[in-house]
This record gives sequence, structure tokens and C-alpha cells, in this order.
Amino acid sequence: MLTEIKERCQRANCQLASSGLIILTWGNVSERTDDDLVVIKPSGVPYEELKPEHMVVVDMDGKVVEGQYRPSSDTPTHLELYKAFPSLKGICHTHSSYATVFAQAGQPIACYGTTHADYFYGAVPCTRSLTQQETESAYEQNTGKVIIETFMDKDVDAIPGVLVRQHGVFTWGKDAMQAVERALVLEELAKMNYRTLRVNPIDCRLPQYVLDKHYLRKHGANAYYGQK
Amino acid sequence: MLTEIKERCQRANCQLASSGLIILTWGNVSERTDDDLVVIKPSGVPYEELKPEHMVVVDMDGKVVEGQYRPSSDTPTHLELYKAFPSLKGICHTHSSYATVFAQAGQPIACYGTTHADYFYGAVPCTRSLTQQETESAYEQNTGKVIIETFMDKDVDAIPGVLVRQHGVFTWGKDAMQAVERALVLEELAKMNYRTLRVNPIDCRLPQYVLDKHYLRKHGANAYYGQK
Amino acid sequence: MLTEIKERCQRANCQLASSGLIILTWGNVSERTDDDLVVIKPSGVPYEELKPEHMVVVDMDGKVVEGQYRPSSDTPTHLELYKAFPSLKGICHTHSSYATVFAQAGQPIACYGTTHADYFYGAVPCTRSLTQQETESAYEQNTGKVIIETFMDKDVDAIPGVLVRQHGVFTWGKDAMQAVERALVLEELAKMNYRTLRVNPIDCRLPQYVLDKHYLRKHGANAYYGQK
Amino acid sequence: MLTEIKERCQRANCQLASSGLIILTWGNVSERTDDDLVVIKPSGVPYEELKPEHMVVVDMDGKVVEGQYRPSSDTPTHLELYKAFPSLKGICHTHSSYATVFAQAGQPIACYGTTHADYFYGAVPCTRSLTQQETESAYEQNTGKVIIETFMDKDVDAIPGVLVRQHGVFTWGKDAMQAVERALVLEELAKMNYRTLRVNPIDCRLPQYVLDKHYLRKHGANAYYGQK
Repeated sequence: MLTEIKERCQRANCQLASSGLIILTWGNVSERTDDDLVVIKPSGVPYEELKPEHMVVVDMDGKVVEGQYRPSSDTPTHLELYKAFPSLKGICHTHSSYATVFAQAGQPIACYGTTHADYFYGAVPCTRSLTQQETESAYEQNTGKVIIETFMDKDVDAIPGVLVRQHGVFTWGKDAMQAVERALVLEELAKMNYRTLRVNPIDCRLPQYVLDKHYLRKHGANAYYGQK
Repeated sequence: MLTEIKERCQRANCQLASSGLIILTWGNVSERTDDDLVVIKPSGVPYEELKPEHMVVVDMDGKVVEGQYRPSSDTPTHLELYKAFPSLKGICHTHSSYATVFAQAGQPIACYGTTHADYFYGAVPCTRSLTQQETESAYEQNTGKVIIETFMDKDVDAIPGVLVRQHGVFTWGKDAMQAVERALVLEELAKMNYRTLRVNPIDCRLPQYVLDKHYLRKHGANAYYGQK
Repeated sequence: MLTEIKERCQRANCQLASSGLIILTWGNVSERTDDDLVVIKPSGVPYEELKPEHMVVVDMDGKVVEGQYRPSSDTPTHLELYKAFPSLKGICHTHSSYATVFAQAGQPIACYGTTHADYFYGAVPCTRSLTQQETESAYEQNTGKVIIETFMDKDVDAIPGVLVRQHGVFTWGKDAMQAVERALVLEELAKMNYRTLRVNPIDCRLPQYVLDKHYLRKHGANAYYGQK
Repeated sequence: MLTEIKERCQRANCQLASSGLIILTWGNVSERTDDDLVVIKPSGVPYEELKPEHMVVVDMDGKVVEGQYRPSSDTPTHLELYKAFPSLKGICHTHSSYATVFAQAGQPIACYGTTHADYFYGAVPCTRSLTQQETESAYEQNTGKVIIETFMDKDVDAIPGVLVRQHGVFTWGKDAMQAVERALVLEELAKMNYRTLRVNPIDCRLPQYVLDKHYLRKHGANAYYGQK
């Protein structure tokens, strides 16, 4: 089981690198096991050298239980999210270019079209900035907490991603690969939103009934997209 | 005959994927046979796994007559267009980035240069939004109907493409491959229009006599572009 | 001699295609021989199929003297330029994206930095629009004439390129390959200008003394860039 | 020792070319030896032909002590920087697109996010323009001097890069490869800044405490990013 998850998690990290979403080591992917262990990328190791056996396994307190490397420095953020949201099995963190622009600008990615509605059931929110105190101690853990705060009134399964103010992006899903796919989608949506705002800065928001239609034809009990 | 069309239709779908126009499964291509059957991509199947024998054959009522998969969920839109416009033999649907931006912004792609005039004899129109009722029942079919409404006063052969408001792009031609080529062209035109509007937001519309010259040197009885 | 020029001209056409400057058949390159023959791409032939023996040889009146294909429909424009400017040995025509945006917007590409000054000794001009009469008869020849008119007070050797209003780009040089290189440079300059205008719309024009310094360290008697 | 440095310097130059940061010969990389010799790219030689033995070795006065080619015409700029800042071991010069846009616009790259803070401890400054006199004689040397002037009140190790007004970019590090990596990072930061300014033109500056946190978790005595 852990072998399979390490392989998938390594593959997800490498796909993140080869997707063009990021350069250098600007991202990391993790996956949670059924026993509440988390498999995550080692910190600062180049993707081209990454092998399944390099993946680090930590418990929910961040203690390394397997692996010779230090886990990603963003590990405490992943752990906070896994602890708060039991349905999350894979998490991806990136600094992908357009989505990070919205994070830097402090603006959510509003839903302007059906491409968005196919994946996110509403705007992708942007967290508030961390306070000086939240930044100076337990910074990565507090990054998780501010995401959780942002989802107080939102459904993490229906909106599987978030912008962290002045920082970057987290996306999630049923495993590491789906988390990466959603990072890819979010970047494309951010790119189209950025340009839509240039062409028509007045509100282009998708009507709720189209959002319902598109989200629900792909998700939930009455979905009819894809194969059975 | 069907073997040849399935192969071409599969090739067209894969070319769409490798062209960089789309990511994931954000597009589909179909071709109509001389017997009014339609060969189309199966829903949600990744392009890299797509083989000619996976293509689905449906009749004009959308009934699957060959193939083990469900057809693309956009099939009813393709069928409406084939029924309304007998000259259409291939149709391509994409969410290509710049063209979709214009669809999200609700703006046609005006003709600003000879590159446009070489392929489209005037602006590429954008449909109106679908009403709540049109969205909630027979949505994909109504997407076809709103395109047909948009072409009431236009020539589908001279303007082989359309933006669907808040959604994406449909292009068409004499077969599946030409439909994809026009999707590629439309994306390039959208990209240049987007930027032309930034440099010179005042009207840059091409004079009618240049539009006539360029369109007609490539199309119709007196065309002199290409080989005989 | 002609074999060598046909090979270089074919290579230049294929390099244009593989450079990413254009899609489909949106460009063509020619080279003039010492005997005032012009080797040029055949019209509408895809680059991937282009072989040296497909290149068409025409005389200065446009008469095909060798080759089984029709020459590019833009041949009369190339011929006008070769006739007017004896120093031109290679010409490249493209619809490259950013440069064409400036052509569509009717704006020259001003010199905003040393990258520009290394290749073009001043702004790259944009022609006026052709009149209805100039468009309706001998259109391609008149495209050449309007370029010549634009260079009445300019040095074609120091400014080896031009934007044709609402159309695209022509660049030139000592052979077909240099013409393509300059098309590549012009596109990069157009891209940087487009964005510089967004960041600082007030005049960013390079002082004349920097233009002199950079242009003259690469060109002319006192150049000291590159190897001897 | 020199063999190793020539190989690394050649590799760094070729990585610069293959990174997509530049086209043609729009950049160069050098590395300083422990004996204060400088290994640098030859002028105007295409990257694809560049071999380690082509690298030129100069002393601090710019005298060629090894190599059959002329050194890069930007060599005097590199030498000025090496002389002024003993900690610099590698220098990279590029005209990468977005960063050069800021240089052309005369604007520093402000710190808008943690991606920036991970590499540069504050804004990347832009030099003043050179005067006519500074341009007309000893131009390349004066380019170095104006960079040094810009860093009078800044720490070159904490801000390992600069924009040269109307020209391009210099970055540096502990060797040639790190200088190139930082050129890559700077281009990504410039790209994100450019777009952040479009989405939110009001000040997006990162709070000082976040800058401190991110810079210091990767750099200095208490860094905890990467492996030990």
C-alpha cells in the first residue's frame, strides 16, 4: 500500500514539474494513507532526481516515520488541511503563475464561464493575509489554519482549491494525481479570468443556473459526463 | 468508409490535443458521413488513449449505432448544427484560451486584419446567453439552437465558427480536420485581437474592400491562393 | 549556385515554421540570385512537405523560370522590394503575433531599449493603409509600393523591416536566413514594446546617443561585437 | 580547476540558451576563479556550437590570458562587478523578456509575494540611465559602475540581481549556474509582477514581516528549507 502511494505521489510531483506549471522546486504534492500517514515530497530536492523511495512519510504530528530526507517545509500546512477535512486524500501546492498573480493581488478567481463551473462550484477564494504573529511563529501551520478559516462557510469538496494571500495555491482531491490535475485547471481558469477582466471589466459572472447545470452534469448523483 | 472517417476523426481529436489549444479533455471533434451518421469522440476519454475504434457513431437523433462508449456530452449540440446546416461535414468544439475569453466577455471577434480576412468573411459572432429554461432542460441541444439563431442572418460557410456566450468555441468545415484547423486559426485571431485592443482601443476594423480582397483571393471562383 | 540558394531558401522557410513565429502557412521567404532571379516558396504548400526542389524560381517580372508549382501569392510584393532596393538579397514575410498586432493597431514599433538598438537603427515604421483602388487591382504589387513609399526618407539597410498596416511584417537581409533571423528579432521587440507600454505608457524612447552606441558597436566600420 | 570552471561556465551558458529565457545570442555568463581570473563566453558565438574550450579567460584588466576568441563585448561590465563585490563568483547577463520590460520602463521589480521573498530580500532595483558621456566612452565599464552606484545602500548578496535601465538584466551568485538560476527566477518574478499590476494596480507590497520570514527560512543561519 505505501509502495503504491509513494509511487503515485512521486509521479504526481513529477507531473507537476513537467506540466509547465512551475519552475525549479516551486511546488509539492502529498497523499494521505487510510491510516492517516502522509506521504510527501522531500524539501528542496530537484524533481528530475526524485524517486519513489525518496518520498517522506510523516504522521499527523509531522514526525517522520519513514524516509531519509526532511519533508517539504510546507508539510505543516498539508497536515492542518488533512486534519480539518477528512475527505481530502491528496494535496498539491504550487506557485503557478496566473493563479499566484490573483493571490498577490488579493482577489478571488470569480466564475466567468462553464470551464470554471465544470470543476469549481463557485469562486475560488483568497485567504486573508497572515498577521505578524501568525507569520513569526508556526507560520506553515498557520497557513493551514487561515485556509480552514476561509472554508468555514464553504464546501471543500465542491471548491477543491484556494489562493493563499501573497503566497500561492493549494488544490486537493481524492488522491495526489487529482490534486495536480486541479492545480492545472486552476491555472488555466486564472489565465482566462485575467484576460476576461481586460476585455470586459464589468461583471461577467456566470448566472447561478448555468453554474448549477455545468457543475452538476459532471459531479454528484445525476452526473452524465464521462463513462459509467 | 466508416473506417476512414473514424480514423480521420480520431486523428482530428488527437491533433486538437497536441496543438496546445486545450488541456485535459476540453474539446471534441465530430464528422458527418454521407448517410447522415455522425462519428464523435467518446465522453471523458483521455486523448492519449483514443483509438479509431473508440469513436462513437450516432444517428441524427443521437442514438448510438456503433461503439461501446457514451458519446461526448456535447453530441446534441453537434447534431443540431448538422441538421440545420447541410454543408457542415466536420465540427470542432474547444475551450481554447483566448477565444473563450471573448466568449466569457460576451464580445465578438471583430476583423482587424488580413489574417482574419483570409479565413473568416467578417466578425466571428458571439451568441446570446441561454435562458434559465434553455439551460435547465435540453441544455446541449439548446446550445445548438442558440448558435443557429445567431446565424439567421449570416453565412455559415463564409464564417465557419462561433463563440458561445460564457462557454467556448465551435468551428466547422468540410471534414473533421478542417474544423480543427479553423479552431487553431480562431484562437490565433482571438489572441491578436485581444492585444490589438490593448494597443489601440479605438476602432481598428478592416475596411470592407480589404476584407473582400483577402477573403476572395483564397475562397470562391476567382481564388488565386495555393496550387490549382 | 541555384541549388545552394534553393536549399538555403527551403531551410529558411522551414526555420520560419519551426521557430514558432507562425502557424499553418502564414509566411514565406525568398532569396535573390546575383542574376536577379528570385527563389521563393510555393503558394500554400505545408512547410513539413517542403523540399529544396519545390522552391519556385521567378524572374523580376514574376515569370516562373523553374519549378512545377505556383509561387507564393505574395511574390509581387517581394519583387517590388528587390527592384527598388538593390542591397536586399533575402526577404521574409510573416504574420507573427505581436508584430502583427502593431500592424493592426497602425503603430510603429518605437525603440525602447538596447535590444532594439542592436538590430534596428530607429523605430520600425508602419505603412499607411492601401486605398480601395490599390487594393482592388495589383494588390500585392501595391503592397510593395507602399513599403517603398514608407522608406522614402529611411535607410533600408539600417532598418531592415516594416509593418504593413492591417496585414503583417516584412523583414530583409543579406540572404534568406538573415531575413528570418530579423523576423524573429522583430517579434521579440514587438512583444517587449507591447508590455513596456502597459507598465509605463509615458514615453520610454531610448536617447539617441544610446541608439548610436548600440547600433554602431554591432554594425559598420567601428563595430566591435562578435568575432573578426 | 580551470577545466572544471570552463565546463561549468559553458554548461551555464547553454542552460541559459535552452531555458527559453533568451533567443539568439542575447545573454552571457561568466565565472571568477579563486585566482581572480574570469572565464566568460566568447562574443557572438551561437550557443549550439559552444564548447568548454571556446570559453575565454581574462584577467581583471580584461586581458585575454587563454582562448582563441574575443570575449563577450559585455566583459568590462562583469569585471567591474567582480572587482567591486568580492563575494560574487558567477554573473549572468540576459535580455529576458519581462525583466527587460521593467528595465525599459525604468521601474524596479517590487516584492509582491513570497515567491520573490524566497530569493530576493526586497525589490530588485533599476539603475539610472547612463549619461551621454558615460555612454560614448567606456560604455560597458560604466554599465558596471552604474550598477555599483545602485548598490551603494544595498546588499548584493541579499539582492542578487539588478535591472539596467533601457538595457536588460544582471544576476549573480556563488558560481555560474546559480547566476543563471537567479536569472530564471527574476524573469518569473517580473512576469508575475507585470500581471499583478494589471489586476491590482494599488500597492500590493509584501509586509516586511513576511519578507523576513520567507527570506530567512531559506537563507542564513536559521534557514530550515532544503536538506542539511
